[in-house]
Amino acid sequence: MAKVSVVMGSDSDMPIMAKAVEILEKFGVDYEIRIISAHREPDIFVDYAKTAKDRGVQVIIAGAGKAAHLPGMCAAIFEGPVIGIPMKTSDLGGVDSLYSIVQMPTGVPVATVAINGGANAGILAVKMLAMADAALAAKLHDFIVDQKEQVESKDAKLQSEGYKAFLS
Amino acid sequence: MAKVSVVMGSDSDMPIMAKAVEILEKFGVDYEIRIISAHREPDIFVDYAKTAKDRGVQVIIAGAGKAAHLPGMCAAIFEGPVIGIPMKTSDLGGVDSLYSIVQMPTGVPVATVAINGGANAGILAVKMLAMADAALAAKLHDFIVDQKEQVESKDAKLQSEGYKAFLS
Amino acid sequence: MAKVSVVMGSDSDMPIMAKAVEILEKFGVDYEIRIISAHREPDIFVDYAKTAKDRGVQVIIAGAGKAAHLPGMCAAIFEGPVIGIPMKTSDLGGVDSLYSIVQMPTGVPVATVAINGGANAGILAVKMLAMADAALAAKLHDFIVDQKEQVESKDAKLQSEGYKAFLS
Amino acid sequence: MAKVSVVMGSDSDMPIMAKAVEILEKFGVDYEIRIISAHREPDIFVDYAKTAKDRGVQVIIAGAGKAAHLPGMCAAIFEGPVIGIPMKTSDLGGVDSLYSIVQMPTGVPVATVAINGGANAGILAVKMLAMADAALAAKLHDFIVDQKEQVESKDAKLQSEGYKAFLS
Amino acid sequence: MAKVSVVMGSDSDMPIMAKAVEILEKFGVDYEIRIISAHREPDIFVDYAKTAKDRGVQVIIAGAGKAAHLPGMCAAIFEGPVIGIPMKTSDLGGVDSLYSIVQMPTGVPVATVAINGGANAGILAVKMLAMADAALAAKLHDFIVDQKEQVESKDAKLQSEGYKAFLS
Amino acid sequence: MAKVSVVMGSDSDMPIMAKAVEILEKFGVDYEIRIISAHREPDIFVDYAKTAKDRGVQVIIAGAGKAAHLPGMCAAIFEGPVIGIPMKTSDLGGVDSLYSIVQMPTGVPVATVAINGGANAGILAVKMLAMADAALAAKLHDFIVDQKEQVESKDAKLQSEGYKAFLS
Amino acid sequence: MAKVSVVMGSDSDMPIMAKAVEILEKFGVDYEIRIISAHREPDIFVDYAKTAKDRGVQVIIAGAGKAAHLPGMCAAIFEGPVIGIPMKTSDLGGVDSLYSIVQMPTGVPVATVAINGGANAGILAVKMLAMADAALAAKLHDFIVDQKEQVESKDAKLQSEGYKAFLS
Amino acid sequence: MAKVSVVMGSDSDMPIMAKAVEILEKFGVDYEIRIISAHREPDIFVDYAKTAKDRGVQVIIAGAGKAAHLPGMCAAIFEGPVIGIPMKTSDLGGVDSLYSIVQMPTGVPVATVAINGGANAGILAVKMLAMADAALAAKLHDFIVDQKEQVESKDAKLQSEGYKAFLS
Repeated sequence: MAKVSVVMGSDSDMPIMAKAVEILEKFGVDYEIRIISAHREPDIFVDYAKTAKDRGVQVIIAGAGKAAHLPGMCAAIFEGPVIGIPMKTSDLGGVDSLYSIVQMPTGVPVATVAINGGANAGILAVKMLAMADAALAAKLHDFIVDQKEQVESKDAKLQSEGYKAFLS
Repeated sequence: MAKVSVVMGSDSDMPIMAKAVEILEKFGVDYEIRIISAHREPDIFVDYAKTAKDRGVQVIIAGAGKAAHLPGMCAAIFEGPVIGIPMKTSDLGGVDSLYSIVQMPTGVPVATVAINGGANAGILAVKMLAMADAALAAKLHDFIVDQKEQVESKDAKLQSEGYKAFLS
Repeated sequence: MAKVSVVMGSDSDMPIMAKAVEILEKFGVDYEIRIISAHREPDIFVDYAKTAKDRGVQVIIAGAGKAAHLPGMCAAIFEGPVIGIPMKTSDLGGVDSLYSIVQMPTGVPVATVAINGGANAGILAVKMLAMADAALAAKLHDFIVDQKEQVESKDAKLQSEGYKAFLS
Repeated sequence: MAKVSVVMGSDSDMPIMAKAVEILEKFGVDYEIRIISAHREPDIFVDYAKTAKDRGVQVIIAGAGKAAHLPGMCAAIFEGPVIGIPMKTSDLGGVDSLYSIVQMPTGVPVATVAINGGANAGILAVKMLAMADAALAAKLHDFIVDQKEQVESKDAKLQSEGYKAFLS
Repeated sequence: MAKVSVVMGSDSDMPIMAKAVEILEKFGVDYEIRIISAHREPDIFVDYAKTAKDRGVQVIIAGAGKAAHLPGMCAAIFEGPVIGIPMKTSDLGGVDSLYSIVQMPTGVPVATVAINGGANAGILAVKMLAMADAALAAKLHDFIVDQKEQVESKDAKLQSEGYKAFLS
Repeated sequence: MAKVSVVMGSDSDMPIMAKAVEILEKFGVDYEIRIISAHREPDIFVDYAKTAKDRGVQVIIAGAGKAAHLPGMCAAIFEGPVIGIPMKTSDLGGVDSLYSIVQMPTGVPVATVAINGGANAGILAVKMLAMADAALAAKLHDFIVDQKEQVESKDAKLQSEGYKAFLS
Repeated sequence: MAKVSVVMGSDSDMPIMAKAVEILEKFGVDYEIRIISAHREPDIFVDYAKTAKDRGVQVIIAGAGKAAHLPGMCAAIFEGPVIGIPMKTSDLGGVDSLYSIVQMPTGVPVATVAINGGANAGILAVKMLAMADAALAAKLHDFIVDQKEQVESKDAKLQSEGYKAFLS
Repeated sequence: MAKVSVVMGSDSDMPIMAKAVEILEKFGVDYEIRIISAHREPDIFVDYAKTAKDRGVQVIIAGAGKAAHLPGMCAAIFEGPVIGIPMKTSDLGGVDSLYSIVQMPTGVPVATVAINGGANAGILAVKMLAMADAALAAKLHDFIVDQKEQVESKDAKLQSEGYKAFLS
């Protein structure tokens, strides 16, 4: 059963949502992925959000752009945590998406990550699931150590090869 | 039967929404006024929007602040025109409300008026109804003439009393 | 006779305005389309706006960019509803156009859609006309159903082919 | 005959417009002052702008707030220089007024001053008139010298009394 | 043992942080509350964040304003989820705090809530804890139902007393 | 002798400043054009601004980007009107340039045109000079008429060829 | 002899500039304080900046608001480090001041601190002077320790008295 | 021993940081350059910042983008001056980086330069070091003179070849 539901309103958001999915796959977390528009198919959307818990969903990751209502409407119906990803927009850079997702009224929070922050949404979902899953927490720890080592190896390259090696 | 439905997510929006209602009353347009939160009572909201047409509603005026999803979600369900009023917010001035309402994706427009533009939302609803109602169009014409005369009388006062009469 | 008048101040706005026209054509709504600059030919503009009603125009769709005065000036003269489309701008992303169109003073509303929201302007005009035209309302309903089905078919593809099918 | 026409769309702008008038009075420049709304009384406005030259007007100072079209529409009709004053707004701080005034399209410039810059609009008008009026240019020079001396005297006070004298 | 650690960099943030605490108390969730500045006492901060897990902390709620580094630095050290609250600021309205908290780089997410969203941070923490705590999930459900009823009762008052009852 | 001095702080601004020059050439207005940096060669700059009047300069057109001080510093020294052109910037779109130029303190106005508004700066200078030059005013009138006719001819093409002729 | 020169363009900036002075006094750093407007008295300003080095000045702290040119013009003339303080403005919150100060072109940096960051400007000046002054560096260390202890004592109060003690 | 430490959180910042390094090399200032992430390797970061003084570091130049915490956290630990470079970001243009760096709370200043202002960060570091190094101050003077001459030679080319020579 899917523990995380990844949902977007438009397939144009897929490149960013895929980053979240790749994280979930890397951590071996079961997920479902859906294209559902709260604006264009509200009935399907309401049904999706209402039945999420019964499908085993513990966390929803919702991405949307412009007047981005999908994450907030998920949070209005699904009682578990909802993570929102504001999409970069071609005109306003994504500040419209960000405000539409993060500025939720009291009572209905959305855990918002950075504009286009697909990978971070996946990591945040893993962190939530790892609260009650020691094996997942251990994988998360290794992931964090691995991140450190990647930066260390870049610095090591810098010390040995000099900064011009990074400029081409 | 109500031709216009005025809806807000929170009673804190009432001072602005009342401006829309005052316009409707001035023009003798039947209306209903509701406090319904798409975020806190999604079922009631969906029912409200789905049955609006059956209640005779031809236009919805929806006001909301911050991550303002009410107008857009009305437009997702109700097939007639939806007018959105972005509420001024204490931190971002209302630019969050404005972006959340105006930047709707293709297929689901919201007719957005100015931040805190309650009266203009009412006037816009009247303009829509007047398209097929000659008596209402005549009242609208008188209203526009009256607006002109108000400015003219201020200018007349300025010419006769001088600008300092306006400064205290 | 044209029921909708589509007007822009510059032919550089045509790609966006054409989206509105395509919607009107799809719905079989009679329209006129004009390039008229309120700034460069104010006399022609005033005459255009004053005579619109006599030409049968019930709704004006006006698009403009930067210090975008065309929609607001239409609303100052034409007594019916005016829909404004803020054009994306190369320096400020269109926030200049948006503010110039949406922040209208009390008494003179412009029904503003998203930046570059040409199609939505057309749909909004159709929604207004459909208030008193049952045949048009029926077409609108079909259009909305069609929109739903398009999203459903994308989700179906996602479920059958997987998310990587959307990434190339 | 008035050389400068000071115009505003609403009497709520008077406190700022009065700053421009006070400058004109200080320099002995003949002026007229009007409350005319391009949005609410377009006919009166067009007549005002078209006849300005015949009234002797050489420069127009126009102030407006929100979707501020008055300065730009003056510049569309009156062929001389138009100075625009963006009014501070309670929600967006005046950035809406500023963009609506300064971002004029090619061919129709508005000489824009700071938000609420009433006095500077007056000074700029004087500078324009002084280009062909040596006596006015001499007054302007004295005004500039006087400005210098005001700052000098504040610095002198600071040097003699210390900074704490400025803090209460 | 504290399950949630509520931390702020300055006691001036207390009115907002108290909203989070009140939610935790309402739900009977054990918490600790600390004033620790990552900027002014980095050693104490690092020790706080490193030992949080050993103190039983499962979620950190961190609030900060301006160049708000506290939430992000918590997320750099503590491996569980971190919820960030951007404080409203007197000059930029809190957009500085928001960007400093939400725009975290890949690998180190902060679950960001609205500007001054203290209560929502508390609710989000409860939602995370409720993922593995059925009793808490039941309380959360009741809380959500209670929210609905509050809006319903306001609408009932509106229907019985009219909108003017809300305006004084 | 040059009546207009066109000055920029960097040769990277030349494409925009050239638009102003092209207008001046079209109207037969004598001008000088200089690259002078107030930041990098303050002595040369001060000398340039102080001697401008003696060189016959009646108007300065100054363009600058980012923290754009050149127009304001011209206005601090040269007693005639100064027109400022804010340059578009690659990071902030030119809003930094705009604020640095338009938000001048009381006493030292800069007549600001749109971001990258080179041509409009030239036209504005012509409008100022035409206040006391009937021949130039006549040319300006012809220019304005020509602008109208250009828009008219585009609309004529639209009416005869249809909107699709503008889309390729 | 003054090691630090504190300069502002208007006495209205004094409350913020005084914060810088109080820091300098606390550390026993010799300073001068001046009100000099680059815009209103450019000659006095140029002389001030050119002779600063001869007066012993090693660092300039310059504060200004709106189109804030004073810090950048100091940096154009004085060859040592210049610290800029952007003043909060009533309309744009100080983002105009910030952009006008921080976005300096290559070759002429201004070390910019936060909006209204008077105290931080003083501390930054002390840090620069302490690079070559061990006694001052020792005082700086004590100051930093003292800052830590202030936060610690607030946290101690919180632990002993509870969060409600901070709310009245 | 390195007098200046140049540090960035990601090698993607290298093109901008290299500009600072090139300035340091041009002035013959000893430096170290490191890739260290405060977010991904907080222990390494804290050690780096704590030992900087012992390595002889007198100034840190730190560059970071988005929620940019590296400069501020350097300033929290290292007691000397820290220069912050906000990186341009693809969505928000770098205003997120700028706010995250410049808006530091009282007590912990960061000397912020322009977005992508790598060279200016290097020059600012040189200015700080030159306060107590007459030879370096002399080099700095020559650099400033050279900057002037570069602008002069461009103006000379303009005078001799005309503005069109700059347009291709």
